[in-house]
Amino acid sequence: MNAADLGLPVDVPSTALFTDQYELTMLQAALKSGTADRRSVFEVFTRRLPDGRRYGVVAGTGRVLDAVENFRFDADVLGFLREQRIVDEPTLEWLASYRFSGDIWGYPEGEVYFPGSPILRVEGTFAECVLLETVILSILNHDSAIAAAASRMSVAAGGRRLIEMGARRTHELSAVAASRAAYVGGFNSTSDLAAGFRYAIPTVGTSAHAFTLLHDSERDAFQAQVDSLGRGTTLLVDTYDVTEAVRTAVEIAGPELGAVRIDSGDLLLVAHRVRQQLDELGAVNTKIVVTSDLDEYAIASLAAAPVDAYGVGTQLVIGSGHPTCSMVYKLVARAQSDDPKAPPLPVAKKSLGAKSSVGGRKWAARRVDAYGVAEAEVIGLDTVPSDLVDRQLQVELVKGGEIVAREPLDAARERHVAALAGLPMSAMQLSKGEPVLPTEYA
Amino acid sequence: MNAADLGLPVDVPSTALFTDQYELTMLQAALKSGTADRRSVFEVFTRRLPDGRRYGVVAGTGRVLDAVENFRFDADVLGFLREQRIVDEPTLEWLASYRFSGDIWGYPEGEVYFPGSPILRVEGTFAECVLLETVILSILNHDSAIAAAASRMSVAAGGRRLIEMGARRTHELSAVAASRAAYVGGFNSTSDLAAGFRYAIPTVGTSAHAFTLLHDSERDAFQAQVDSLGRGTTLLVDTYDVTEAVRTAVEIAGPELGAVRIDSGDLLLVAHRVRQQLDELGAVNTKIVVTSDLDEYAIASLAAAPVDAYGVGTQLVIGSGHPTCSMVYKLVARAQSDDPKAPPLPVAKKSLGAKSSVGGRKWAARRVDAYGVAEAEVIGLDTVPSDLVDRQLQVELVKGGEIVAREPLDAARERHVAALAGLPMSAMQLSKGEPVLPTEYA
Repeated sequence: MNAADLGLPVDVPSTALFTDQYELTMLQAALKSGTADRRSVFEVFTRRLPDGRRYGVVAGTGRVLDAVENFRFDADVLGFLREQRIVDEPTLEWLASYRFSGDIWGYPEGEVYFPGSPILRVEGTFAECVLLETVILSILNHDSAIAAAASRMSVAAGGRRLIEMGARRTHELSAVAASRAAYVGGFNSTSDLAAGFRYAIPTVGTSAHAFTLLHDSERDAFQAQVDSLGRGTTLLVDTYDVTEAVRTAVEIAGPELGAVRIDSGDLLLVAHRVRQQLDELGAVNTKIVVTSDLDEYAIASLAAAPVDAYGVGTQLVIGSGHPTCSMVYKLVARAQSDDPKAPPLPVAKKSLGAKSSVGGRKWAARRVDAYGVAEAEVIGLDTVPSDLVDRQLQVELVKGGEIVAREPLDAARERHVAALAGLPMSAMQLSKGEPVLPTEYA
Repeated sequence: MNAADLGLPVDVPSTALFTDQYELTMLQAALKSGTADRRSVFEVFTRRLPDGRRYGVVAGTGRVLDAVENFRFDADVLGFLREQRIVDEPTLEWLASYRFSGDIWGYPEGEVYFPGSPILRVEGTFAECVLLETVILSILNHDSAIAAAASRMSVAAGGRRLIEMGARRTHELSAVAASRAAYVGGFNSTSDLAAGFRYAIPTVGTSAHAFTLLHDSERDAFQAQVDSLGRGTTLLVDTYDVTEAVRTAVEIAGPELGAVRIDSGDLLLVAHRVRQQLDELGAVNTKIVVTSDLDEYAIASLAAAPVDAYGVGTQLVIGSGHPTCSMVYKLVARAQSDDPKAPPLPVAKKSLGAKSSVGGRKWAARRVDAYGVAEAEVIGLDTVPSDLVDRQLQVELVKGGEIVAREPLDAARERHVAALAGLPMSAMQLSKGEPVLPTEYA
């Protein structure tokens, strides 16, 4: 499902302005100096995982492909760049016919990554590649941060359902991307209708305190909700007294009541009491949904509580303390001359502090031990050894400017489950630790 | 400048799907039960500031007005809701003609706020108000978080220029809103072209390491940049050796060189050395721009360094550790009957834990002491006392569905400067503390 096909530009038709100004001024200077067409290799990687995280999750790859395809400079954009004198006329002419014509390889969406993993590799002329830096990093840095949090929450939930409810806590379109990334990371559904519209993620809803307060009594509110939405609905039971609310709820909806939601208080204690009460009232199939500032630790702490689903808001959309990754987009190789056939050779910044990087085009593979459990992220330069037995991690995403790796979102979601299952068990620990796989340079 | 007028929907034409599903199902149930038209008052407020912050900054108000105006259910949206069976046919019919026809009052953009401040008040029928909850909170929670961080950085920078460079660290459209909020909070410019396009924020750019690495020598790169962009350009001097780079830069551009950027190393030390070297080379007017994971503390620590401008990325767009606010949208009053003339009376949730709220429609004023310095945020219920001398904080934003308070972004930016200037000096301390004004209920 594509929003543009459906007539509603939930996404933006052109992504060309999601770009830092210096990309365009570097282009102008390179066009003038004659270096713009040098064959170049840029790579996306991260020097470290967020403090204490044991693995990262690649998410946003599908959105990157959309962004590359829609990276076009139309008349309005060119008019803005001209009016603001961002670049000169020859550069504007060049931009007017811009289409990315290079190749992109990368870790497929849902795969896990580690420090140094070459998550995305963009090859083409310097000019066509450098322009994509900002938008590619925006997408991968945001979406991967959310997916990593979602993955940890999913591990903590241990098979119980997870509902993404964070739209109100983040930018309205960030929220749509967050729902998508959460789904990749293991969430089951979202409250965000735009995410349902744009990405066909299952949407769900319960009820708010305002609805109860609107009515003259909690009983009136429950009756109104059940009359309109059926007995399978989820009633919010903590506006006044939970015990009384649960009694009223089952009186009105009967044992077919779908679920009750608890949004405050000591969730562990209240969930136990509510479960017992529901069972005593014969509502043994009525589910319990809990919400209220949950994160992966709170979810884990409710493992022993009779909870059927977790609704997660704030902590999901802010990446549970790590709302961005530190992915960078670096030139790692380039041709030594302007000859279009000249092969790209390694380059690397060598400067102060910890910001140096490893030059050269990289391949990556995951080595497993005799039991099939991953034991290292192996990264090598240039050609993949012909005798490599480890599973290669990069796949072809764009070939000669054509996108060749579109896939349904469920494929990424399933890939993440498989990727996690292949890691050492220590990956599932929520406590702070080192990356569960060492990065080894072959 | 409006994106739609310019032909590029950087924003989304309809905001109606930036909505949690339960808003629509509550609407359906209220339509059926006959309570949908009860006069209601919803308020946006926050129970607390982020840990240790001394004041909050209202931002996003202008975007809220756009969102309310564009909250329309067109055929595609209605088709989605029908196909997914989110709501029933009578509700779809109601939504098809939805236009917000109520009133909105609120703190104007750039104003500061404290726990309990009634930042926004939305009045109308329950049905028309409840639908706006999610999108209003998304915008205010995101934009205010960024503006608060920007404001602290602006205080720390003490008049030196601040450049927003965080696009690559957050969702691509979140980045545009972040640039806008940063500008309200005191930043001078942005690297994000979409923010320049959409909100006419001044855009700037420097150069990346990739540009230097593309060329056969740093000298070639600098020459190419100066040839194309002029001597006023900003050269990046830390790809290899800073001292050599600065020497080369001034050799090529002469003392008219606009600026050099330092992106790594011990910025305090390096800035001093570079300043001395530039001065010795006669480039006394060449500015120094520093970047590299700056936050308000790093900026403050560079107060004694000869730095002219700070480029801030990650920490700006993630709100310097607090990427969201905890604003909520609560029903605080409603009519006791379906009579459209029945006055809204206070309602409030009384439940477990700390989530209770104060019912009733609120006004707010800032009381100042004999020296004109703010000393309290005064909040009262219902009618503003006729003898109130304190400055009232809420302004009319929407009247009978019509937006009455559009303003240029610079007005919000200037308002923030004035609001900060009216606070006690302790507001400027970066260390953790209590809100600088107590909230008093009149």
